Amino acid sequence: MYTIGIDVGGTNLKAGVVNERLEIVAKKSIPLVWESQEKLAKDLADLAAAAAEAAGVAREEIGSIGIGVPGPVDAAQSIIRHTVNIPITNMPIGKMVGAYWPVPVRLGNDADCAALGEFARFGSTDIESLILVTLGTGIGTGIIMNGKIWSGHNSCGGEGGHMVIVHGGELCTCGRHGCWERYASAGALVRQTQRAMEAHPESGMWKLCASTKEVSGRTAFEAMRAGDAAAKEVVDAYIDYLADGLTNLINLLQPDVVCLGGGVSHEREEDLLLPLRQCVRERSIDRDLVDRHTDILTAKLGNDAGIIGAAVL
Amino acid sequence: MYTIGIDVGGTNLKAGVVNERLEIVAKKSIPLVWESQEKLAKDLADLAAAAAEAAGVAREEIGSIGIGVPGPVDAAQSIIRHTVNIPITNMPIGKMVGAYWPVPVRLGNDADCAALGEFARFGSTDIESLILVTLGTGIGTGIIMNGKIWSGHNSCGGEGGHMVIVHGGELCTCGRHGCWERYASAGALVRQTQRAMEAHPESGMWKLCASTKEVSGRTAFEAMRAGDAAAKEVVDAYIDYLADGLTNLINLLQPDVVCLGGGVSHEREEDLLLPLRQCVRERSIDRDLVDRHTDILTAKLGNDAGIIGAAVL
Repeated sequence: MYTIGIDVGGTNLKAGVVNERLEIVAKKSIPLVWESQEKLAKDLADLAAAAAEAAGVAREEIGSIGIGVPGPVDAAQSIIRHTVNIPITNMPIGKMVGAYWPVPVRLGNDADCAALGEFARFGSTDIESLILVTLGTGIGTGIIMNGKIWSGHNSCGGEGGHMVIVHGGELCTCGRHGCWERYASAGALVRQTQRAMEAHPESGMWKLCASTKEVSGRTAFEAMRAGDAAAKEVVDAYIDYLADGLTNLINLLQPDVVCLGGGVSHEREEDLLLPLRQCVRERSIDRDLVDRHTDILTAKLGNDAGIIGAAVL
Repeated sequence: MYTIGIDVGGTNLKAGVVNERLEIVAKKSIPLVWESQEKLAKDLADLAAAAAEAAGVAREEIGSIGIGVPGPVDAAQSIIRHTVNIPITNMPIGKMVGAYWPVPVRLGNDADCAALGEFARFGSTDIESLILVTLGTGIGTGIIMNGKIWSGHNSCGGEGGHMVIVHGGELCTCGRHGCWERYASAGALVRQTQRAMEAHPESGMWKLCASTKEVSGRTAFEAMRAGDAAAKEVVDAYIDYLADGLTNLINLLQPDVVCLGGGVSHEREEDLLLPLRQCVRERSIDRDLVDRHTDILTAKLGNDAGIIGAAVL
């Protein structure tokens, strides 16, 4: 049997046929064209059919469909409560897609699905808890405990990016001051790099970018490797902030694994993961109490985590 | 049938016979006299027997024993890994107490047991998740999710007091800078009150204490009620810090209930809980997304939470 995992994004709808080894057999993607809930349900059903056809899998071989959406859901009833960037409120997507596909249709938040996908690749006998921390414009977190998504009593939890680590700090989009994502997201790293460049006209970071508009999450890391002191300060401070939030998560929840996702997570191990692990180890409350500590790893599934996670739902 | 709950503290051992309605039928307490693991196991077994006798309950009517200890445990095997303030390492307490009592002996961390006790009083059909936040010298947190203790992959989690909310802030006993408990514990409130008194020789707080040594967690609240401006500043700032950590917990885990325990939690509702709830509501990410929010309540079981929680294990 196969499962279809669907990742509903703000710009694209992606569906993949996933086999029992959690491999994607075939994928299909179409742009999201928002008209109505009815149109979206039909588009998703058609996309699932197209993915099955591309995989050469008969409809009868599809055991279930899982859908991940950007926003809080009522998983028990497969209802989307609300989405970010798409004007959906209270959509019974399970029932609506189920009208086209007579199989169970399960629903999850996209960040939670991605975490579930990363969790699934370990095999359920090895670990029972994982937090996926995605470093993008903001910081997304997906929490798996006892092998299941934990998203709070009505699915609005899992917002680790909106954990204040700098009381009274920078204003966040959520309205709070000093959220972790203002300091440790890829977006924050870009802002920190831009500020350092403006303060250091002599910095080698300028050689990598014609203007501060071209700064990326890689700029400071690259300049640091070339020996630039201002860039090293940016990277050190960034890792310090990243470690503070990760240590908070570990002190509170002590999961088996923390996975880092997003572009920044692909930096060289010696420049990011190794110093980060050392910072977190030195700071966590369990450092001298136990032999086995939370593993801090790079996420492996990348853009496919959402599809695979939705399929695992 | 009855259960015996035992609370192992740094100075006293307390045992209670608990009935099926989670009421304590009888309690016994003895000072902890540390000699050896063997002696402690025998003391606990004798204390359980004394509690059963005080309750007028025959040994055959005791179905199980639960023990809460101050430190991380291996709950699956009923082994104490390590305790704070008592020199215990790797004690198979389940097996050792089981030699005297032929019933299942379960083990938990004391803060987790207290959270489980608070959770149990709601009845498992009403809520499925709760965080107990105890405001004492530090801040203790016990996490219940899906009706069970969550203490991390090897029981060193649940340390919400050691979540940094002030990056680079005050040095904590754990070695980090800016932990929540440095700003929002009862101990922190006392230090904040002392500093405000030294800065404000005219403050009404001096009338309540002959010296700053007599300051308690109640001083600022009492002076505020008498109209003292400096005291109001202390209370407002304290609630601000407390709300920051609580909002972090709620954004991340969104439990059904957060219970506040410890002396400070008994302040008048209009002075503590009401402004605190308002701060947290304004700051939490789910404020406009859902109708039902995390309830912030005062813990009800007080000193008995450990015994009842251990009995529920």
